[in-house]
Amino acid sequence: MLTNTRTVRIEWGDCDPAGIIFYPRYFEIFDASTAALFEHVLGITKFEMFKTLEFAGWPLVNTRARFLKPTRFGDDVMVETAVKFGRTSFEIEHMLSLKGELCAQCTEKRVWTVRDTQGHLKSHPVPAAVLAAFNSSRHAASEK
Amino acid sequence: MLTNTRTVRIEWGDCDPAGIIFYPRYFEIFDASTAALFEHVLGITKFEMFKTLEFAGWPLVNTRARFLKPTRFGDDVMVETAVKFGRTSFEIEHMLSLKGELCAQCTEKRVWTVRDTQGHLKSHPVPAAVLAAFNSSRHAASEK
Amino acid sequence: MLTNTRTVRIEWGDCDPAGIIFYPRYFEIFDASTAALFEHVLGITKFEMFKTLEFAGWPLVNTRARFLKPTRFGDDVMVETAVKFGRTSFEIEHMLSLKGELCAQCTEKRVWTVRDTQGHLKSHPVPAAVLAAFNSSRHAASEK
Amino acid sequence: MLTNTRTVRIEWGDCDPAGIIFYPRYFEIFDASTAALFEHVLGITKFEMFKTLEFAGWPLVNTRARFLKPTRFGDDVMVETAVKFGRTSFEIEHMLSLKGELCAQCTEKRVWTVRDTQGHLKSHPVPAAVLAAFNSSRHAASEK
Repeated sequence: MLTNTRTVRIEWGDCDPAGIIFYPRYFEIFDASTAALFEHVLGITKFEMFKTLEFAGWPLVNTRARFLKPTRFGDDVMVETAVKFGRTSFEIEHMLSLKGELCAQCTEKRVWTVRDTQGHLKSHPVPAAVLAAFNSSRHAASEK
Repeated sequence: MLTNTRTVRIEWGDCDPAGIIFYPRYFEIFDASTAALFEHVLGITKFEMFKTLEFAGWPLVNTRARFLKPTRFGDDVMVETAVKFGRTSFEIEHMLSLKGELCAQCTEKRVWTVRDTQGHLKSHPVPAAVLAAFNSSRHAASEK
Repeated sequence: MLTNTRTVRIEWGDCDPAGIIFYPRYFEIFDASTAALFEHVLGITKFEMFKTLEFAGWPLVNTRARFLKPTRFGDDVMVETAVKFGRTSFEIEHMLSLKGELCAQCTEKRVWTVRDTQGHLKSHPVPAAVLAAFNSSRHAASEK
Repeated sequence: MLTNTRTVRIEWGDCDPAGIIFYPRYFEIFDASTAALFEHVLGITKFEMFKTLEFAGWPLVNTRARFLKPTRFGDDVMVETAVKFGRTSFEIEHMLSLKGELCAQCTEKRVWTVRDTQGHLKSHPVPAAVLAAFNSSRHAASEK
């Protein structure tokens, strides 16, 4: 699987009265990490994906997450995100760690969608150009 | 000015490590209170407004807010929202209080918009039907 | 299992550019629904629980969620929340539906915590008074 | 005034069904920008400030903001934050721009607080060490 890694600062406003991150904020971080992986590989932002690809979003089918160690404001966490493609869907895994220690782990299943003629979202095969870009990124990565 | 009042529960997840509400959450409450005022008067949700009115949203031009007393999770605050219409814009005032004591006060100026032929937002006169609904609500209220 | 049901309005600010709820908002709704269940049974808010019970929060161990149908701003969804107690942890299930149709389903495992002498969170048996209140609520419910 | 500049990515989840940023997210960005300015000058995070300074937070007294141009997901905005100190309070100004064009501008007044013996927040003079750090940063900046 191809992975992308980014660093995220946990902010004061992400934390709750216990002084630790309010867990729905992790899902905001994971959602942005999914977009960052695609941007890293495709070289365009999600905004540009809407304009140039057969793409109307990747709604979530399911997700599961484990929380091993809390994080708090001021922490710079590392999020490593990997993807595995199916035909019209893909699975994402996020590993969020602080100073090398795993703090949260999440998997998600998402569907690739386009708009039908009435404007409704419907599933659609992941475009060949997207799969090709991920394949050549993986080869480039493995040759390093 | 016509007003609408609603009660909002401050939640654990709205609060920060100081144990009090994280102030951007107030603006989420105020935004929903603006929508609630229009829903109260027009009898339709904002979602339905998009479908049945010349309407593409009411982006904010400016806002100012004062914070007098903190609130915390478990508090049921009262938000009183009033509107004053201009031609293509309107001013909103929110008074947020707890047990009769004012905790936060906010004014906002918003623009009524529609989409132009290229899909961009542009300002537009507040529809006559909207003004009429607010006028008759005010008369109904003052007769009570 | 004892359940609590509440209605939640999906707001404009909960939704993303696809016009549907941004899924981390569901976890905010679920977290508040967990608190609402305890408040319903114990008769005190989470804020008061901190003051009157051996209690320092219920951090999440894991969660899993399925998303079956999107919801959007203006929707009044029903959230039915049920709990099953272990010794120092408990499992929660949330069923979120719109007009009788299940839209999202979530399970969470949480740990009951207190602060140790150094102020750190540690797991602790669910207080007997809490278990007793849930037991008598269940009996009251089943007699109806 | 001493300023700090940082770049912030606007994310999909920050945007609303109009496709532009939901304005309460700006206040989350501004709050984090205030913390970033202090971290830049003091060399410690806000978390460390709680441990090493007479400091219990800087609650907001008031804020006002103007919104000139919308931003959307995929935008990397620049936030320039400046501070002016009073005795027990300080004023912050945030200028948020995209590609050199000002999109939002915000001023805030905040109070420096400590906890009194009963644990309540009370205003307190900004510590001399904080003022000194800002003064020497300013001198260092002006000599460049």
